[in-house]
Amino acid sequence: MGGTEQRGRFYRRCLTIYGLATMSLAASCSVAATSDRGLLAGEVSEVAAGVWRIRFGNPERFVPTSFRERDPRIVSINALTDPGTLPFSLEDIRCHRLSGRLAVYVPCDEPQDEIYGFGLDPRVYRQKGYRKWLTLSAGVVGETGASHGPVPFYVSTKGYGVWVDTARVPFVHVARLTPKASLMGSAENQAGDLKTSVSELYAAQKASGKPEVVFDIPAATGVDVYVFGGPTLRQAVQRYNLFSGGGCIPPMWGLGLKYRTYTQGDHKTVMNVAETLRRQHVPCDVIGLEPGWQTNAYSCSLVWSDQRFPNHQDVVDRLRGMGYQINLWEHAYIHPSSPLFDSLKSRSGDFLVWGGLVVDFVDPKAFDLYSQYHDAEFIQHGISGFKADECDRQPITDSTPFNYPYCSIFPSGIDGEQMTQLYGYLYQRSIYTAFKKHNLRTWGDVRATASLSAPLPFNLYSDAYEQGEYLRQLLNASFTGLLWSPEVRDAPTLDEFLTRLGIAAFAPQTCLNIWSIPNPIWTQFDAEKNKKNLLLPEDEQQEVIAKVRELLNLRMSLLPYFYSAFYRYRYEGLPPARALPIEYPQDTKVRAVEDAYLFGDNLLVAPILGNKDTRKVYLPAGNDWWDFYTNTRYPGGTEQQIQTSPGRVPLFVRDNCILPLAKPVEHVADDTVFEITARVYGDEPASFTLFEDDGVSFDYEKGRFNRVTLSWRNGKGNVERTGSFHPHRCQIVAWDKIAPGSSQ
Amino acid sequence: MGGTEQRGRFYRRCLTIYGLATMSLAASCSVAATSDRGLLAGEVSEVAAGVWRIRFGNPERFVPTSFRERDPRIVSINALTDPGTLPFSLEDIRCHRLSGRLAVYVPCDEPQDEIYGFGLDPRVYRQKGYRKWLTLSAGVVGETGASHGPVPFYVSTKGYGVWVDTARVPFVHVARLTPKASLMGSAENQAGDLKTSVSELYAAQKASGKPEVVFDIPAATGVDVYVFGGPTLRQAVQRYNLFSGGGCIPPMWGLGLKYRTYTQGDHKTVMNVAETLRRQHVPCDVIGLEPGWQTNAYSCSLVWSDQRFPNHQDVVDRLRGMGYQINLWEHAYIHPSSPLFDSLKSRSGDFLVWGGLVVDFVDPKAFDLYSQYHDAEFIQHGISGFKADECDRQPITDSTPFNYPYCSIFPSGIDGEQMTQLYGYLYQRSIYTAFKKHNLRTWGDVRATASLSAPLPFNLYSDAYEQGEYLRQLLNASFTGLLWSPEVRDAPTLDEFLTRLGIAAFAPQTCLNIWSIPNPIWTQFDAEKNKKNLLLPEDEQQEVIAKVRELLNLRMSLLPYFYSAFYRYRYEGLPPARALPIEYPQDTKVRAVEDAYLFGDNLLVAPILGNKDTRKVYLPAGNDWWDFYTNTRYPGGTEQQIQTSPGRVPLFVRDNCILPLAKPVEHVADDTVFEITARVYGDEPASFTLFEDDGVSFDYEKGRFNRVTLSWRNGKGNVERTGSFHPHRCQIVAWDKIAPGSSQ
Repeated sequence: MGGTEQRGRFYRRCLTIYGLATMSLAASCSVAATSDRGLLAGEVSEVAAGVWRIRFGNPERFVPTSFRERDPRIVSINALTDPGTLPFSLEDIRCHRLSGRLAVYVPCDEPQDEIYGFGLDPRVYRQKGYRKWLTLSAGVVGETGASHGPVPFYVSTKGYGVWVDTARVPFVHVARLTPKASLMGSAENQAGDLKTSVSELYAAQKASGKPEVVFDIPAATGVDVYVFGGPTLRQAVQRYNLFSGGGCIPPMWGLGLKYRTYTQGDHKTVMNVAETLRRQHVPCDVIGLEPGWQTNAYSCSLVWSDQRFPNHQDVVDRLRGMGYQINLWEHAYIHPSSPLFDSLKSRSGDFLVWGGLVVDFVDPKAFDLYSQYHDAEFIQHGISGFKADECDRQPITDSTPFNYPYCSIFPSGIDGEQMTQLYGYLYQRSIYTAFKKHNLRTWGDVRATASLSAPLPFNLYSDAYEQGEYLRQLLNASFTGLLWSPEVRDAPTLDEFLTRLGIAAFAPQTCLNIWSIPNPIWTQFDAEKNKKNLLLPEDEQQEVIAKVRELLNLRMSLLPYFYSAFYRYRYEGLPPARALPIEYPQDTKVRAVEDAYLFGDNLLVAPILGNKDTRKVYLPAGNDWWDFYTNTRYPGGTEQQIQTSPGRVPLFVRDNCILPLAKPVEHVADDTVFEITARVYGDEPASFTLFEDDGVSFDYEKGRFNRVTLSWRNGKGNVERTGSFHPHRCQIVAWDKIAPGSSQ
Repeated sequence: MGGTEQRGRFYRRCLTIYGLATMSLAASCSVAATSDRGLLAGEVSEVAAGVWRIRFGNPERFVPTSFRERDPRIVSINALTDPGTLPFSLEDIRCHRLSGRLAVYVPCDEPQDEIYGFGLDPRVYRQKGYRKWLTLSAGVVGETGASHGPVPFYVSTKGYGVWVDTARVPFVHVARLTPKASLMGSAENQAGDLKTSVSELYAAQKASGKPEVVFDIPAATGVDVYVFGGPTLRQAVQRYNLFSGGGCIPPMWGLGLKYRTYTQGDHKTVMNVAETLRRQHVPCDVIGLEPGWQTNAYSCSLVWSDQRFPNHQDVVDRLRGMGYQINLWEHAYIHPSSPLFDSLKSRSGDFLVWGGLVVDFVDPKAFDLYSQYHDAEFIQHGISGFKADECDRQPITDSTPFNYPYCSIFPSGIDGEQMTQLYGYLYQRSIYTAFKKHNLRTWGDVRATASLSAPLPFNLYSDAYEQGEYLRQLLNASFTGLLWSPEVRDAPTLDEFLTRLGIAAFAPQTCLNIWSIPNPIWTQFDAEKNKKNLLLPEDEQQEVIAKVRELLNLRMSLLPYFYSAFYRYRYEGLPPARALPIEYPQDTKVRAVEDAYLFGDNLLVAPILGNKDTRKVYLPAGNDWWDFYTNTRYPGGTEQQIQTSPGRVPLFVRDNCILPLAKPVEHVADDTVFEITARVYGDEPASFTLFEDDGVSFDYEKGRFNRVTLSWRNGKGNVERTGSFHPHRCQIVAWDKIAPGSSQ
């Protein structure tokens, strides 16, 4: 493979800092095509401060950057701190072309450093030592990272990130392979005792792993590799999200509860749920309709069922009148009875899924047809969002046939492998385009996405239901620009329901997907009884509802706080929920913490999994922490044993911060004004900035928003508002200087 | 995709019947290369009677036919019955080139027909409706067919077979995808009730599958597809095996017991087992040594351990003197301390496995070095065979790192994907070459093989231990030219040991792999006690040994019978053990039978799985069946409930046959003469032909064997011997006309 010196010959460097206006990757200096096998020449461009692209050969036509939702947010990238020095030279990244694939080798760090990322991995958090197989997958495939959001991007605690711009399904060997070149010939060092168990054998092998990350990319003959500088992991994540175009900002109502109703229900079932929620004063912003709203599913007609919704517009209007948004279930496989069928028949893949067409979203006409149909039929009639089910792929271990093969042919020229990897992503863009035309934000659900997803206002969800995996996905999502909605479906008991709701309440989206039973789940946890309307006695219901309401009200009270976190996502690339290494890159002890995370800037969430009433929490070093409920103050860098009860999620507030808590509303309306109490923790609190806007349009992109900065000086709270947005959404009604140990 | 007429344009036909002498696929008329995407031209050649090759584009350089052990046995193929008419036209097989892969579409049959094959699939028997992912795998991956022997060959009960000559890892969608073209536009037919459970949804999807087999082959830009005619499934299997070069014939001793000894043991442990077996009169032909014989494993030094075997040649000589053959464990990853290391360092892959070199067997020099080393160091010193462990790949669901990546680089130009698929196969060829030089047969164990394996005298085995999978693998192996050895390792009780031994006793190889405990397993089933030499009391041992001996003696008595089955494998392509659809292609009821098979021509084996003492057996239609033990006679086409006991495997003899049973020997020596009783079943028994040869050399290839044909006419047995081999190995000492119902 040759040494660094030899490899240097293969590189040509063109250092270019692009301004936002002139940003065009395609315009960077081109590299000569080569059809040879072997080491490929690499051409380095600095596409923004601390973001480098290395182009090997001729990249494929169908890659994520070909389908960007937004241009990179260069101005924000350039505003970040200096990226510092990479721990390796860009010339050390090599690419070898084989007969049917590319191998990209990236140097790696010392053993004490950790690597995170690769998308919505349900099983692995610290990625070193694993073989990732980044295919879209509706279920877990060992520790491969096959998931609803496989992303070939990782970050290192050494302070950088690496992304490969591919829509192929790569294997990534993360500090796991031993190159022959590493052999020093010392046979003695390698001799060992004879192993008599398989686990001994594997352990011995694992220990010998050498630090290098190898991307094994099928089919491609050229590829772009991007390196994102730090100086810490935090800035590498920011750079990747800003390179993706910056994060989405949901409509404000999107941060309330989404309640998805009985799939076999009709207008009466839906209205019953909607009315019950309001009567019970359970906060809820969105009613979701599951497959039954359509005349045909699976596959999809995308036509209202006259049978179940004889006057669907009336249902929509009544729900809107009650302050609800409406979200419709679908999947992008088009049934022959759909009005879209004829026009998409020639603009779709050569195989059917669930008997329906697989839309060729790469074809601009198909993309527009799909988008425009949703606009004309639904968005213009008051629908606020969609949920795309089944747009992923059954796991390799599952033989049920709900996908098209990798060898599928699409008229646009994309193949089935690339389409599988991009389908959910392109679907989101098609839907989002329709809303943008009306200057309307949306907030959707989707079961598949890809790289560069940060700008898309969709939450990933899954059919899996293991709480540990739910939490790990929430953390992993935060490294690679994904949003995760750990939906609550069934629960046999109130305690389990509250435990699950506890995770959902501190996720980007809080979703109850009660698709299999007609009445609100808390009115009867037994599904069969629920279907027969045999509900709990009224007094018992009231007890249950009180607990549910308390938890949801807590989320609602954090709404302005959390909404502001999305502004940072949009303009600074900082994800709204964050794994601890993002927030505390210097604290080596947080690197193994898979069960706690930051919700917004200042709240550490440590959910209880299962039926326990106690858990240990590691509180990161660098500042003290306040128990949200008891105001007990703990030093950072310590582990605490926390007692709690179902539905009370352990929460810790960062010392020296201002936490704005709103009086909870039952739903967010266009004219909602939040009455906010600013809690002040510590004696020298940092200021906190809330963002005010209309909550529903893109006018904020034109500056139509206010910054409401809260600060505390000399024992007194100050509010400073900049911007000209009216009316004001945040009204600071009180200041509460928290005293240690005072209970809530 | 166009109709048949349009596709016809893409085809050029060159009908050529090759004789054995002039057989050369490379010499067939070439097809113009095309770099275009889209439908590829197909060129049809008839390479032997009823074997057609369709060449699409330019096939890859590294495919199974590039590494044949033997030329196709054209003379035998041409001697088969007329292949009949294929149920589809060869022109209906299409191939489409996409950006990074090929799609090959093969028409399929009516729903009532079944498809079998794809190698050593552990989970699926009838293949329709499944997505196969034919990667080598050390463990089960759902129902994908990932296995120790993935083979892209299948046969249909319609009477034909299809094989794709590729060393890639294809997906094969077996009558599972719904082409868009199948849509007739009748929306009404497709509408259905709304589904409220995932299983309902999947069932609905499954039912819509249309009959086509789609091979999705990565990386390749051209490929050869072979079609094997029938007229029945039986002849399609024969044609494939004969195209592979015909089956192997093991050394006669290979059909006795192989006992693998304690890996941490030394010369004393080994000799103790060897002596104990002889003292106990338990038949055994082969002693296998596990990793501990080497100075280093894992990876392998391939050097005798002076510590455990201070005088290894003495051990070898003494074992040989006791009539044992010796088999040595290894894997083909070369440790730095190995004498082979230096010469293979530049002839190996760029990554290490277990810290050892991955041999580039495609490099003729590396192939020879490996072969010659085994010859000089072991074969010339009395070693009779080898076992290659770990030459497969960890399943995708398992993150333990015991393999090289698909993007591995080898000096010969083969890549890691192709090498993974071929490694075990090429290893076998390298070892076999060394034995052939000495005109010596061998009989080995291997954990990975590929297409065209029939000529290789190696048995597949695995680490898995589920009895249902063991049996299914035995059946599946028989469709695609593989041999399977369901080895017996541990067993907590005598009953379980006997049950497992019962399957092993009627497999191509009977192997006890007692690698984890020092004394014969039946002297103490408790591993910890066994290690401490706390054996069962002598009288208890004797009871146990009697049962073990009885089962093994039954196998030994069938040895000449079963040995003859391998002659049919060699010269007629009929596998020695056969799934029932091979033997009874016209009986539709056998198609679902996954728990019984033919052992040789005339014995139906119906193993008991688990701790049961009864089972149902379907006896194929077309002839009556005799219970081997009770001589009860059952009509064919019926299901019987059979009572049995542990270690007594239900066996049924085909009516109207002659079954030669030998007096069991404890091991096979060069001068062993089998004293045979010919059992006669039925009134008009077909003749049966035994084969006599030296049992160890390849002289039979030059005609140095006898056919000993047993027939029964007018109440009297006749022996007709043709051939000039001496001395005679089969001595017919008695004839036994079986009377119905007479107990053994």
